[in-house]
Amino acid sequence: MKVSVKVPATTANLGPGFDCLGLALPIYNTITVEETIMPGTGIEINIIDETNEQDIISIPTDENNIVYKAIELLYNSIGQTPDELKITINTHIPIARGLGSSAAVVVGGLLAANKLLGSPADEAALLSIASEIEGHPDNVTPAIVGGFVIASFEEDGSVIYRKLPWPKDWKITVCIPDYELATDIARSVIPKDIPLKDAIFNLKHSAMLVEAVNSQDKELMKFALNDKLHQPYREKLVPGMKEIKDALKHEENVLGCVLSGAGPSLLVVSYGNNLNKIKEIISKTWLDLNVKSQIYTLDVEENGAVILE
Amino acid sequence: MKVSVKVPATTANLGPGFDCLGLALPIYNTITVEETIMPGTGIEINIIDETNEQDIISIPTDENNIVYKAIELLYNSIGQTPDELKITINTHIPIARGLGSSAAVVVGGLLAANKLLGSPADEAALLSIASEIEGHPDNVTPAIVGGFVIASFEEDGSVIYRKLPWPKDWKITVCIPDYELATDIARSVIPKDIPLKDAIFNLKHSAMLVEAVNSQDKELMKFALNDKLHQPYREKLVPGMKEIKDALKHEENVLGCVLSGAGPSLLVVSYGNNLNKIKEIISKTWLDLNVKSQIYTLDVEENGAVILE
Repeated sequence: MKVSVKVPATTANLGPGFDCLGLALPIYNTITVEETIMPGTGIEINIIDETNEQDIISIPTDENNIVYKAIELLYNSIGQTPDELKITINTHIPIARGLGSSAAVVVGGLLAANKLLGSPADEAALLSIASEIEGHPDNVTPAIVGGFVIASFEEDGSVIYRKLPWPKDWKITVCIPDYELATDIARSVIPKDIPLKDAIFNLKHSAMLVEAVNSQDKELMKFALNDKLHQPYREKLVPGMKEIKDALKHEENVLGCVLSGAGPSLLVVSYGNNLNKIKEIISKTWLDLNVKSQIYTLDVEENGAVILE
Repeated sequence: MKVSVKVPATTANLGPGFDCLGLALPIYNTITVEETIMPGTGIEINIIDETNEQDIISIPTDENNIVYKAIELLYNSIGQTPDELKITINTHIPIARGLGSSAAVVVGGLLAANKLLGSPADEAALLSIASEIEGHPDNVTPAIVGGFVIASFEEDGSVIYRKLPWPKDWKITVCIPDYELATDIARSVIPKDIPLKDAIFNLKHSAMLVEAVNSQDKELMKFALNDKLHQPYREKLVPGMKEIKDALKHEENVLGCVLSGAGPSLLVVSYGNNLNKIKEIISKTWLDLNVKSQIYTLDVEENGAVILE
């Protein structure tokens, strides 16, 4: 028996909402989990790069693979161990670019394995396991439920979240440079203690961001998409980020430009029709720094992971 | 010519929304500003305590009075100086209890003087001057516009705010102890640098609070009314706070108990009919610590300052 699950890419943080806000995007990985019949075959993990452009060599295909680790937690939660499993990952989501590729495969593996086991875990349990593996809930939550979410990973291991309707005419432009940035490096540059005034800055901007989305308030969104907790520290790890932000600052219809997750991809929120001009500005700014990029304009994916029968 | 302005009390912070969230409450001060005709009479400031219970002796009645300072800034902004003015403050709002008494008199003085001058300042200019005097916008904004607001005092001196409808059945119980706590002391105990994880805690709780109010989501509000940026440090300055919070923790219909502004007053958000029980618990807990208190259950005041003709 085998189960395949299609899971969307996700972008986390959205500027001020560090480890809290996330959004699903219409780029998908498919994760297939198969119970092998022959005992002793152990764990087999295959990664198929559908884009032919990624470095998948460095991803572990043994018990250290995060999909396997997530599935193991699920099995353990019902007193079992995953002895014989074949896991196939078909990946479209760029790896190590801040687009939730790891959250997508963790969620896909979990949902597929859960289905194979007869669905012992409910959404809350799956969110909890996925957040434990990822360390934060802002990618895995929209990967599971879709749309725009506020999420919190609580000390007791539970996830509290709410999904809000994203304004239909607010487009997301995803700008992916041709270099990687590992999340652990991007996290390591943020100090453990930060100025109180920066904390106040972010709490009011994240509050404003929720109100801006709720009331489809473009002027407020422009104000809200600012951050002092992570982007100032990560800017030096993302060549071109400052230049692109500056170039877009006075561009009509642009509501903001932020790091996607821990980067290095950038996310531009805009409305209206000057999307090609936005793409050109970004592409040219990076090219001037000898960085090639892929740029897509996307709607928000309102659906989360889907089990393919 | 004289103008009187009636201004509501306000409560700031609401737990996670430090220096950002505020709410107007139906307790009022009236501030009257009168242009005296006789030259050389200078500034006269009278404070009338309508409650007969307050320490008004320590409030300056010369050029150091904050109402006068606010009016002076307004006059200066149009190239004038307030030479001859009589200011009368009728105060119902308890002083130095975290209920916006200073914001109320600043706003009242400004609005009255502005009217006397022929209304040269618009709302934005008045918000800006009032926030400059107060140092933060979360009391003066609801004092001017009423209701529940998210507000930000920007580096350029402007105030960005939005007013959100507060759920009609969410009651505010204001609990005022018989001791004062000066805002500057309450501020001095908060460190200049705080843990990143506490900043993340507050930004997600303030985002959740806005969503909870917008969607009238009681369960979420219960979660959202938590804070790690100011209350843990101020708790030691507010005898009884911890005990009252603990006593209310499992009380039905209580959504949360937070410091009102910098304290020492507490604010309980609840719904339903067990208001008397809530009052009893608070009053008794403080009495056990030899603290007398005044406790009022209030609706949110949706209107801000009103010029009385």
